[in-house]
Amino acid sequence: MAKKVIVILADGFEEIEAVTAIDVLRRAGADVVVAGLTGKNTAGAHGVRIEADVALQDVKGLPDAIVLPGGMPGAKHLGESKRLGEIIRQMNQAKKLVGAICAAPALALAPAGVLDGRKATCYPGFERSFSKAITFTEERVVVDGNIVTSRGPGSALEFSLQLVEQLAGKEKAERLRQALLVSSR
Amino acid sequence: MAKKVIVILADGFEEIEAVTAIDVLRRAGADVVVAGLTGKNTAGAHGVRIEADVALQDVKGLPDAIVLPGGMPGAKHLGESKRLGEIIRQMNQAKKLVGAICAAPALALAPAGVLDGRKATCYPGFERSFSKAITFTEERVVVDGNIVTSRGPGSALEFSLQLVEQLAGKEKAERLRQALLVSSR
Repeated sequence: MAKKVIVILADGFEEIEAVTAIDVLRRAGADVVVAGLTGKNTAGAHGVRIEADVALQDVKGLPDAIVLPGGMPGAKHLGESKRLGEIIRQMNQAKKLVGAICAAPALALAPAGVLDGRKATCYPGFERSFSKAITFTEERVVVDGNIVTSRGPGSALEFSLQLVEQLAGKEKAERLRQALLVSSR
Repeated sequence: MAKKVIVILADGFEEIEAVTAIDVLRRAGADVVVAGLTGKNTAGAHGVRIEADVALQDVKGLPDAIVLPGGMPGAKHLGESKRLGEIIRQMNQAKKLVGAICAAPALALAPAGVLDGRKATCYPGFERSFSKAITFTEERVVVDGNIVTSRGPGSALEFSLQLVEQLAGKEKAERLRQALLVSSR
C-alpha cells in the first residue's frame, strides 16, 4: 500500500522546498496529502498561492511521514502551532518519519523536543536556536533515526530523495534521482 | 526598474521547474507575473494546484522575459497555444529573454521556429522532435543569444540562476546561488 505522507504548508512556506518534496514523493508513489496549517488557502514566502488538499485540523490519525518546509514566516508559524507540536511528538514516539528543512528543524522540531540527543542540520544561522542537547552539523542532509533534516532550497532535491529512500528504499530513490536529472556530485 | 518576467503555467506543468523559476526570480527582485495559459486556476503534473496571478489573455504588452516550464501534458498545451506561439515569436524578434526547460524547448519553442539555427537542450528524448536546423546539446543549461534552455527538475535551480544572470548580472546570480545553498560542482 502507498505510504501516506503529509506535507504541511503554513503561510510564508518556502516554495521550492515545499513543492520539491510534494513532487518527488508523489513521483515515488507516496500518497501525499498537502495540509494547510490554518486552512486550504496558503501563500508562500514569495507569493506563490497553493491550494492545499485539506486543512490540518481535518487530518485524522498519524501518517507514515510528515514533512515540514522552511521559509519565513512559515517555519515560525509551524513552531507556534500547539496541534502540530503534538503531532510531531506523536510521530516521533511512534518512530515514524519526520522530515524538516531550512528554518523548520530549528523553529518547529527543536521546540517540540524531538531533536534532543540527536544530530541535525538547518539553514545557516538558525542553529543558534538549537539547545545544547542537539548536535548541529553542516551536512546537507542528516538522517538520525526517524528524523531527516536539511539546509535550504538548494538541498531540497537531496532532502526529498532521502525521504524517498527512507520510505521506499535506495533503489527507488536512485531511479528517481536519475529521472529528475539531479547532478551527481 | 524591476525587470518584468512572465512565467506561464499550463495544466500539467512540472511543479519543481515552475516554482523554482518563480521563487528564484522573485528573490532576484524581478516583477514576476504568473500567467495561467487558460485561466487563473492551474494544476501541475503532480497535482499541485497553483492560483496564477492572471490569465495569459489578460497580459498586455511584452515583458522583459518569458519562462516556460516543462511537464506533461503542460508543455504540450503550451505548444498548442497559437497565442503563446505568437508571443514567443514576438519576444524573439525583439531579442527579449525566452527561457524554456524540460519538454518545453522541444514542444513549445521548436514549433514556434525560434530555435532554428541555434544550440539548445531539453529533457532526454524530446530532442527527437528537434528539426535538423537545431543543434542539440546535452549541457544542463544552454544560452544561445536571447534563448536559455535546460533539461529537467534537477537543473531547475541552475536554469533559474542563469535567467537571473541574464536579467540582473553575474554578481546577483552568484549571491543568490550562495543564499539558496546550491551545491558547487
